[in-house]
Amino acid sequence: MSVRLTSAQDYASLLDRYDTWMFDCDGVLWHGDRLIDGVVEVLGMLRRKNKKILFVTNNATKSRKSYKGKFDQLGVEAHVDEIYGSAYAAAVYLSTVIKLPKEKKVYVIGQAGLEEELHEEGIAFLGGTDPADCTLAPFSLSDFTLDPDVAAVVCGLDTQINYTKLSKAFQYLTRNPECLFIATNEDSTYPSADGLLPGAGSISAPLRFALGKDPVCTGKPSRTMLDCINAKVHYNPERTIMVGDRLNTDILFGQGGGLATLLVLTGITSESDITGPNASPIVPDYVTNSLADICAVTE
Amino acid sequence: MSVRLTSAQDYASLLDRYDTWMFDCDGVLWHGDRLIDGVVEVLGMLRRKNKKILFVTNNATKSRKSYKGKFDQLGVEAHVDEIYGSAYAAAVYLSTVIKLPKEKKVYVIGQAGLEEELHEEGIAFLGGTDPADCTLAPFSLSDFTLDPDVAAVVCGLDTQINYTKLSKAFQYLTRNPECLFIATNEDSTYPSADGLLPGAGSISAPLRFALGKDPVCTGKPSRTMLDCINAKVHYNPERTIMVGDRLNTDILFGQGGGLATLLVLTGITSESDITGPNASPIVPDYVTNSLADICAVTE
Repeated sequence: MSVRLTSAQDYASLLDRYDTWMFDCDGVLWHGDRLIDGVVEVLGMLRRKNKKILFVTNNATKSRKSYKGKFDQLGVEAHVDEIYGSAYAAAVYLSTVIKLPKEKKVYVIGQAGLEEELHEEGIAFLGGTDPADCTLAPFSLSDFTLDPDVAAVVCGLDTQINYTKLSKAFQYLTRNPECLFIATNEDSTYPSADGLLPGAGSISAPLRFALGKDPVCTGKPSRTMLDCINAKVHYNPERTIMVGDRLNTDILFGQGGGLATLLVLTGITSESDITGPNASPIVPDYVTNSLADICAVTE
Repeated sequence: MSVRLTSAQDYASLLDRYDTWMFDCDGVLWHGDRLIDGVVEVLGMLRRKNKKILFVTNNATKSRKSYKGKFDQLGVEAHVDEIYGSAYAAAVYLSTVIKLPKEKKVYVIGQAGLEEELHEEGIAFLGGTDPADCTLAPFSLSDFTLDPDVAAVVCGLDTQINYTKLSKAFQYLTRNPECLFIATNEDSTYPSADGLLPGAGSISAPLRFALGKDPVCTGKPSRTMLDCINAKVHYNPERTIMVGDRLNTDILFGQGGGLATLLVLTGITSESDITGPNASPIVPDYVTNSLADICAVTE
């Protein structure tokens, strides 16, 4: 059962217990372009207490560099090397785990952020934001030339999704031997500032359905994201806490890595998802209404 | 175990036993725009023997009227009232089973054929081929006005699929109370003349994933398709045979309706799908290589 944090004493002991704080962003720090109250104060306090801060996001539309711009814009202190995104995890997975040979390429269903991370890791790609593939013109299989060097399809949130991209990706996955099927993340929905929209998991769903198989997923809750962090940052899992708003991504991710977990109720998860007869089987260690509650601690 | 048809005698006794012959089209009569050898001769022979012929297709991009044009173009005799498509089944399901009130509307993910069938059944719709929804421009939820009269989303094969259509459909399905989620069919792939492409099931897959729920399906193997036929045609199921190339649509459909089933190997199913240790659990009554084999019968 989760511990419900309420008193200043509860928050103070949490601060004593954990040195490294990993944060999901959307639904925890902000909603779309609107900052959640108290976030700047809480992160500032953690920094003053010399806590290590990491931002772990499944947003695959932005590279770490452009995600840093979002923090700047909202007035939240952050550094590029504190930011871990699912697009970055996908690129590092291909360069480090798969060790994709230099002559091989990736077909991208995704946006500029995913392309930037692939480029940074030295991975050649096609598709993505290429205007030739961002089209609603009819797709003709007889006019399509299969590139035999495409060894993987990587799929993230792509608001330019269309039948040409899906058809090309399907050809690579069915006709190029051992072509890998990788998804940055499996979030079913995406929390825009004005409400929920279909998420990255919905963008890979057509291929999942057509192929009858699931992709390798690099974002939360996948272990791949944690492997990425482990390769770059030293931290003690026993003194680390993952703060998030989604049970099946953030909390599961923390639990899979042996971290403590704190659920905030400012995002996708509501009280009724964690209490009563229909409560999720995923149980965080701690629950609090909002990150701002931690300000209750007197420094 | 299936009976493998080989001799002229086998085919002759099949002709004696069945008065009504239901045919799938793609993979049985043609591949894309290429007629399969012997089809005209076999259908001609069946007509001369006064067999009742029905064409039962999951193709939801064409209305029955425009599908008739495809028969004409390929030189195959067919009549509109012999053709049953999954778009027609979806329209009849809404008008006859759901009895959608006149003031209600349907949001369409699909092509002109689906719109034509809805129109014929007197069902108002939006989306579909509307240029405003056939766009890759960014979708803004704050600029979107939810139409409270949309009581169903109907999803068929749509090669103009995009994030605006998916986002609007998602809004209706999550924000309009009891909005129905209907798919014309769940075919994972679509057999174009030049090879397989993602099918209608792949087009509804993003919504299926985002909602975490399956649509009501009106095409084969669904009972809804058979209910449509039953409402219009008199036939004796015991003397009716369904001929198709897909085990999980055509053969399952026939079996669900208590019909005999004949699998042809000119389409998606190969010998290895029906024999050996990995054979499908769906077992047709009869198997033959091609519809043309039936010409072995001397009239």
